[in-house]
Amino acid sequence: MEEVKLQGFWPSNYCHAVIWALKLKGVDFDYIEEDIYNKSQLLLEYNPIYKKVPVLVHQGRPLAESPIILEYIDETWPQYPLLPTHAHDRALARFWIDFGAQKVPTFGSFFASTAGGEEGEKAAKEALEVLKILEERGLGNNKFFGGETLNMVDLVHGWLAYIMECIEELVGVKLIQPTTLPRLYAWVQNFKQLPVIKENLPDRQRLLAHLKNVRDRMLANA
Amino acid sequence: MEEVKLQGFWPSNYCHAVIWALKLKGVDFDYIEEDIYNKSQLLLEYNPIYKKVPVLVHQGRPLAESPIILEYIDETWPQYPLLPTHAHDRALARFWIDFGAQKVPTFGSFFASTAGGEEGEKAAKEALEVLKILEERGLGNNKFFGGETLNMVDLVHGWLAYIMECIEELVGVKLIQPTTLPRLYAWVQNFKQLPVIKENLPDRQRLLAHLKNVRDRMLANA
Repeated sequence: MEEVKLQGFWPSNYCHAVIWALKLKGVDFDYIEEDIYNKSQLLLEYNPIYKKVPVLVHQGRPLAESPIILEYIDETWPQYPLLPTHAHDRALARFWIDFGAQKVPTFGSFFASTAGGEEGEKAAKEALEVLKILEERGLGNNKFFGGETLNMVDLVHGWLAYIMECIEELVGVKLIQPTTLPRLYAWVQNFKQLPVIKENLPDRQRLLAHLKNVRDRMLANA
Repeated sequence: MEEVKLQGFWPSNYCHAVIWALKLKGVDFDYIEEDIYNKSQLLLEYNPIYKKVPVLVHQGRPLAESPIILEYIDETWPQYPLLPTHAHDRALARFWIDFGAQKVPTFGSFFASTAGGEEGEKAAKEALEVLKILEERGLGNNKFFGGETLNMVDLVHGWLAYIMECIEELVGVKLIQPTTLPRLYAWVQNFKQLPVIKENLPDRQRLLAHLKNVRDRMLANA
């Protein structure tokens, strides 16, 4: 009954955030790969509202939506706390987690854009502005959003360390550079070097091919 | 230094949720009405990212975004807990809080719609579907989302008990009725009767006039 299962989809950053959290906590779990283009009966049963991964099943009870799953993991397994101790610091951590969620459309526009032209420049400029806020006000001069070690804020923004470089390659614009975002650039390097992250990342070529596919379909339907 | 200040805007449901939470906890606070059409220097300083109310200032430190403020309030003043004790139940409460946030655009479309016509019917149908999910899966057979007493989920959905009826009047479509949503209808009655809610609601006529104004401007710009 203590069994922990995770339904995921290999390129999903939301699923990786949950996987990293469980690994940091040292929680054993069974990973179940979901075919999101042909959803299983189990997924529809576990997450009838959104029908999306990740779904965490603990003691037979399913939970959906990665920010909620991450809070649950942190409350259930207290080892390696993923949020600060003090209420105000916890609130600020949640603020930056939520900030990332609110800015998904901005990064979506960047993903669907192409270098050059007015629209492409606008999308890149807006995404860069979001990243600058995240760097200056969120990360500051810390090594990680969590300070000296990773916390939930790092996990949620983790996609900036591996998916973003694929997106930049597809779009033809490099946003996170030592010149433009030096502290966020350093964060990317520090983040990717950690064994728990490095050992739980999708293959870069496979991810790039997947994202190219998704983007090509988006652009064809636009 | 223990001082608690709240910057708010009188018709804002996000501000009311925070006011109700502070009242339920018995926390004394100074309320500062903000002119959102002519924002104060203090608001821009306290919430430079979104420049929105509510902002809670506790011990001189500001916090923005009502769901984050509500979690902070619950962690800082433990009396009258606003979330369940057990991690799975807390996660489900957060799920329904987040569900409301995710469905804001659906209610926004309903607010901007007018009874009759294909578009009006579509907007009403989609808003009704969201409310049915909230009733059936969120509220269930409980008196409140929190069970026998209010919790954070009730506070966040509180706008359904007073703003919604103004919106319904403006649009010309009644969504929450004893016939269509009997349990949610009963929840509205139970919610509004509680002294802490009743004593901290805006004047109905003033609210209706404000919403009419906002809606007229939206429709003129559409």
